[in-house]
Formats: sequence, C-alpha cells, structure tokens
Amino acid sequence: MESIRVPAVLRYADGEVAEAADELAREEPLEIRVRGRAVSVTMRTPGHDEELAAGFLLTEGIVRGPRDVLRVEPCGRNEDGNVLNVVLAPEVPVDFDRLTRHVFASSSCGLCGKATIDAVRSTFPRVESDLRIEANTLLRLPGQMRDAQASFDRTGGLHAAALFDAAGKLLVLREDVGRHNAVDKVLGQALSNGWLPLERHVLLVSGRSSFEIMQKALAGRVAVVAAVSAPSSLAAEFARKSGQTLVGFLRAGRMNVYSHPERIRF
Amino acid sequence: MESIRVPAVLRYADGEVAEAADELAREEPLEIRVRGRAVSVTMRTPGHDEELAAGFLLTEGIVRGPRDVLRVEPCGRNEDGNVLNVVLAPEVPVDFDRLTRHVFASSSCGLCGKATIDAVRSTFPRVESDLRIEANTLLRLPGQMRDAQASFDRTGGLHAAALFDAAGKLLVLREDVGRHNAVDKVLGQALSNGWLPLERHVLLVSGRSSFEIMQKALAGRVAVVAAVSAPSSLAAEFARKSGQTLVGFLRAGRMNVYSHPERIRF
Repeated sequence: MESIRVPAVLRYADGEVAEAADELAREEPLEIRVRGRAVSVTMRTPGHDEELAAGFLLTEGIVRGPRDVLRVEPCGRNEDGNVLNVVLAPEVPVDFDRLTRHVFASSSCGLCGKATIDAVRSTFPRVESDLRIEANTLLRLPGQMRDAQASFDRTGGLHAAALFDAAGKLLVLREDVGRHNAVDKVLGQALSNGWLPLERHVLLVSGRSSFEIMQKALAGRVAVVAAVSAPSSLAAEFARKSGQTLVGFLRAGRMNVYSHPERIRF
Repeated sequence: MESIRVPAVLRYADGEVAEAADELAREEPLEIRVRGRAVSVTMRTPGHDEELAAGFLLTEGIVRGPRDVLRVEPCGRNEDGNVLNVVLAPEVPVDFDRLTRHVFASSSCGLCGKATIDAVRSTFPRVESDLRIEANTLLRLPGQMRDAQASFDRTGGLHAAALFDAAGKLLVLREDVGRHNAVDKVLGQALSNGWLPLERHVLLVSGRSSFEIMQKALAGRVAVVAAVSAPSSLAAEFARKSGQTLVGFLRAGRMNVYSHPERIRF
C-alpha cells in the first residue's frame, strides 16, 4: 500500500478538461523513539517502517549489528502506526545530543499526518485569493523555467523553483541541490523585495511536490503551486485544507489539478 | 557558480571507456544562526545564501515581513561563507525549541564541507573491498530495478533504492517519497538479515546521489553506489575519500564513474 487513491482530480489534456481518479504516493510523518525519547521525525511512505527505523539508527552510527536491536514496536497510544519505539540492547551507547539533530525538539507525542497539518495551519492561516489564471498561461511556465535555468542542463543535478506573476511573467528563479532550498531562496528574495503576500503569484518547482514544499509556499501566502511531476498524498491533502491550488504533471500541454481548480480558467 | 568542475571522470558509452572532464552541482553545508545560536544546518548549493537564510526563517514562521530581518552576515571566523548570522529586529520573538528541530544539536562552529566529511569519516572508516564487478552487470541494474518497482509507474511520486550482489542479483528493493528513507529501509533490511558489511554489494538509487546517500551507504559499508542521475560535488568528493566507487548517469548503456573505478571491469 504505497499509493493512495485521490477521488477527484481535474485532468487537462489537449484542450479538454475532465474529472478523473488518480493515485498518489503516500507521505506521512514517522516519529522514531529510542529509550522513550523522540530522536527523529521524517516524512516517509508508510511500509517497512521497522526497517526504516533500524536503518536510520545504523546510518546514524548508533547500531552496528543485528544484535544491537532487540525489537521495534509501535508506541502504545498511537493508532496510526506513525510512532515507533526501537528497543536497543542495554549495552548500546546512545549520544542523544548527536542523534536528535533531525528531531522536532518540541515534539511530544501523538504526531500523525493530521496533527502535523493542523499544527502548521495554526501557524499559517488559509490562503484567501480571488486570483484567476489562464490554463494556457500555466502551460507556458515550465518552458520559461527551463530556458532560464543556467546550470541545470550542464550538471543535471539541480532542482529549480521559480516565481511567476498572474500573467506568467518570470520574477525570480533559483536552483539548488535541495528542492526545499530552492523554494526558500525564492521566498527569501520575495521577502526582501517586499512582494509578500504572494496571493497573486504562482510558484513552480521542478520534480515533485511534497508536504514540505506546500508548507513553505503557504508561509509565503502563495495561492497557486505547480510542479512538473507528481505530488505526494500529503501535499494534495494539505493544499485542499490550506486553500492553495495544487497543479501536478504540468508538462507537454497537460496538467492535473489536485485542489482549488476554481482559480484556473480552462 | 552553481557547478563545479571534476577533473577526471571515466565515461563509458557504447562499449568504450574514456577519461573526461565533468561538471557537478555544488553541495556544501550552510549553518544558519539567529542571535548567536545555530538553528539549522542544511546541505545546499552555494549562492543566494542570504535569501536562503531569510526564506528559511520565513517558512519556519519566525519572520513575517522585510523589516523583521535587519541584515544577514557571514559569521566572524569562518572563511568559506558556510556560516551565516541573521540579525533580527529586537522585537521579533524566537521560539528556539521549535526552530532547532532541523539543527545538529551538537554543532558548535567551523562547520564546512571538509569538517562534515571528516566528522562522518571518523565515525565510519574507509571501505576496503577487493570487489570486481563487470560493467555489463552494472548496466543491467536499472532495468531490473524498474521491473521490480510496483508503485513507481502508477504514481510517479516515489524514489527507489535497491541492493544487488556482485553478480547483479536483486536482493531487496524499497520505495519511498524520500530517497534517504528508501536507502534506510534497504539498509535496515540488510542489517536484520545479517548481510552487513555490504562490501561485496551494489546500492542503486533512482534519481541523484547526494552527500547524505553516500554517508548512509558508508554506514552499511557499501563498496559500490550507483545512481540513475547525477551526483552532487560533495557526493563525489566524499566517495573518493571514503573508498567508495560512485557511478552516475547509469542508464541506456552508459555510465560515468566518479571515484575508485578499479572495481569495475570494462
């Protein structure tokens, strides 16, 4: 069960728009605990979670061999399986200061997809925007981004994020090995230029869109987020609740709209 | 300067192997400090770092408008520009507990690419392996991984990691929205099966290879890491020092070898 069915997606292709069902990669937070303490929260696709927890502790240098892990078990009170406790052999030393580098320092318990979404939404309110944008304008954005990318074609190793106005004019483009960094760079530029809130703008990212990208876009009040590839399940769910229009597979004259299609004129 | 020149890469195409120069996307750590405290370390492509720092604080809900950031400046004693201090307006409240969720809790100062690489290498010693693998065996791996991927083609949103033996036999494949999670799942499975150290194995990842992927592979003692797309500069540098063979652009009968090509028989 690595994918999740999305009931109603608007699929636009060859000038025709139609409702369709779609399947998205599942994305949910997993909290890993060691000796009762949360040491990591990662956004992952559910499945093989015991391996993920053991592998994480191996790659962090805590676990050295199979006998170091006595068992991996779901944490008592959580029902969605998103909190795991790793029981280590008593003699395995754990440097919690080093290990908690990935952790949400304030996370206490009960973390699940819903809790995270709600926590983020309480920090950043829902986007309200009466922006209307032409489907044809959206279809032109990936080509504009590609033309503006200097390094991408040379190294093949960079993600890109770009901000456009409602007429499809490219305002800023940034590239980075990390997609989330490219988005932070675009939003930092928008902040210092006094463009916030970005309620009448479109953010385009190369590759996929995740929960993290949507959350960052919401912080900048971006009304429309588009990606060249697929969104995760949590990105689509988040966008519906946050009032953001989420477009995926925006390429070759096509797109899928996962939330708030009322902003797009087909 | 988003890319970096790599002096000597072995390029294999159409049965011919040749030395070539190549350009890789730069990847280096950036430490962001607020009021003298490290709040984030992220692996990023250098350039527009002030925007990245401001954008990060915006998307974390600390900064709300342009007047909240007085200035962004390099930290005194670091010469490579990889530590930035963000000077916030005095009235901006900072919840350090929430903010440090991404931080290396133990990072103190002087973090730079070299320091990080050295720190990781002191935890995980260099791989010593006399493994020899046929180039033709490597070329077959991406097709095997694709055939074994159940969800990938359906959602287009999942990364994959797969472990092969030296004869090119697929041992385990895992998929996840996060490439690092897919690798952790594979290594966790290898750990519990008693396969470690993986000195006679090949780890293949979809997409790109980063510093983080190489570090995780080193924890499992993986001798050969291959990726379908490009590596970052730090991945290639790390692989050279860690004794790992790093293969990139492994597809369509071609590959680039960025480090320790002595393990591949052309």
